[in-house]
Amino acid sequence: MIQRGLLVVLSGPSGAGKGTVCKSLLPSTEGLSYSISCTTRAPREGEMHGVNYFFLTPERFEEMIGNDELLEWANVYSNYYGTPVKYVEDKLAAGENVLLEIDIQGALQVKRKYPNGVFIFLIPPSLEELKKRILGRGTETEESFKLRFGAAAEEMEYITEYDYVVVNDEVEKAVEKIRSIIVAELSSVKRNREYYMKLIREGQKDAVSFD
Amino acid sequence: MIQRGLLVVLSGPSGAGKGTVCKSLLPSTEGLSYSISCTTRAPREGEMHGVNYFFLTPERFEEMIGNDELLEWANVYSNYYGTPVKYVEDKLAAGENVLLEIDIQGALQVKRKYPNGVFIFLIPPSLEELKKRILGRGTETEESFKLRFGAAAEEMEYITEYDYVVVNDEVEKAVEKIRSIIVAELSSVKRNREYYMKLIREGQKDAVSFD
Repeated sequence: MIQRGLLVVLSGPSGAGKGTVCKSLLPSTEGLSYSISCTTRAPREGEMHGVNYFFLTPERFEEMIGNDELLEWANVYSNYYGTPVKYVEDKLAAGENVLLEIDIQGALQVKRKYPNGVFIFLIPPSLEELKKRILGRGTETEESFKLRFGAAAEEMEYITEYDYVVVNDEVEKAVEKIRSIIVAELSSVKRNREYYMKLIREGQKDAVSFD
Repeated sequence: MIQRGLLVVLSGPSGAGKGTVCKSLLPSTEGLSYSISCTTRAPREGEMHGVNYFFLTPERFEEMIGNDELLEWANVYSNYYGTPVKYVEDKLAAGENVLLEIDIQGALQVKRKYPNGVFIFLIPPSLEELKKRILGRGTETEESFKLRFGAAAEEMEYITEYDYVVVNDEVEKAVEKIRSIIVAELSSVKRNREYYMKLIREGQKDAVSFD
């Protein structure tokens, strides 16, 4: 009896450091793999179908939307991006844990379709620090900063839609916490009821024999 | 603003190895301390009041029962044993995590009074292994074995009252899992709602200033 894998959704306001945390988390966590997205944008030099993305035609992508074959999707600068249900579902059924790094709107879409996921909100250590990180990119006018920072502050309100909050003060600490969350969730009774019920039934049979 | 500590309740059928796991978990886990019990039994050589136990008179213990000053209590071979609410409460309020190692009946009592605890069910890797452990004590007649093993198998049914199940296949692995559960619970949104709401309000004030 294989224990079903977890869908781990790492999300949070822009500037929280989701990408950096994922890059460190993935290679160092056994049994965790990255969810490969679908997109209609053209492959870049060196990108491979089924490795970096599933590269699809707009027609095929729209068909997937129509057939409800995507956990979430968005259209960014006229390109579609989305997470294929079947790819994720196959991995989970095989007992693999799947990591989805995604913005808040995407995470909320996933939650509606797969409330059983583990929803982690990554935040910068303080809004002061977030301010520094946004300004540190050096590309901001006062106008665009206010827009981005204001958006991030507003996005904080979505915390209550999530299961966990991890403060990204140091990448390695944040990674360690996410790894702990995965271990804990895999040990949770609510996720393993069926398995434990089987244990109990076996136990009651065994209890009658001494040898 | 201090984050409130966790009450970690480690419980499970007899023979699961709760004592061994606690002995390894406590010294190696920062911010976790053992809950000191009250008892009416006489101190043994070297035992100190407030270190090993709070040694009380039966009158005082019964007064505590009457005043609802115990998280749980039991009478074993004419001695009372119990967990004082105030001792635990003071530690939790100071942000310390408190570990309670306790049998299933005690854990169920604690759960009624403090449902906010983290309830961990420790089980042997298999009922075969449990059988070996009980027989390994070498003191069992067929009669007493059947009684103990039957009780343990029945006790497995209480799994669903708990939040987590940890299989004690190797002590160090079990300890590591419990440590992960503590980290995860401390990051859970449901436990930190108030703290995050404060963060959000601060964020919205800050969002208006560029410098």
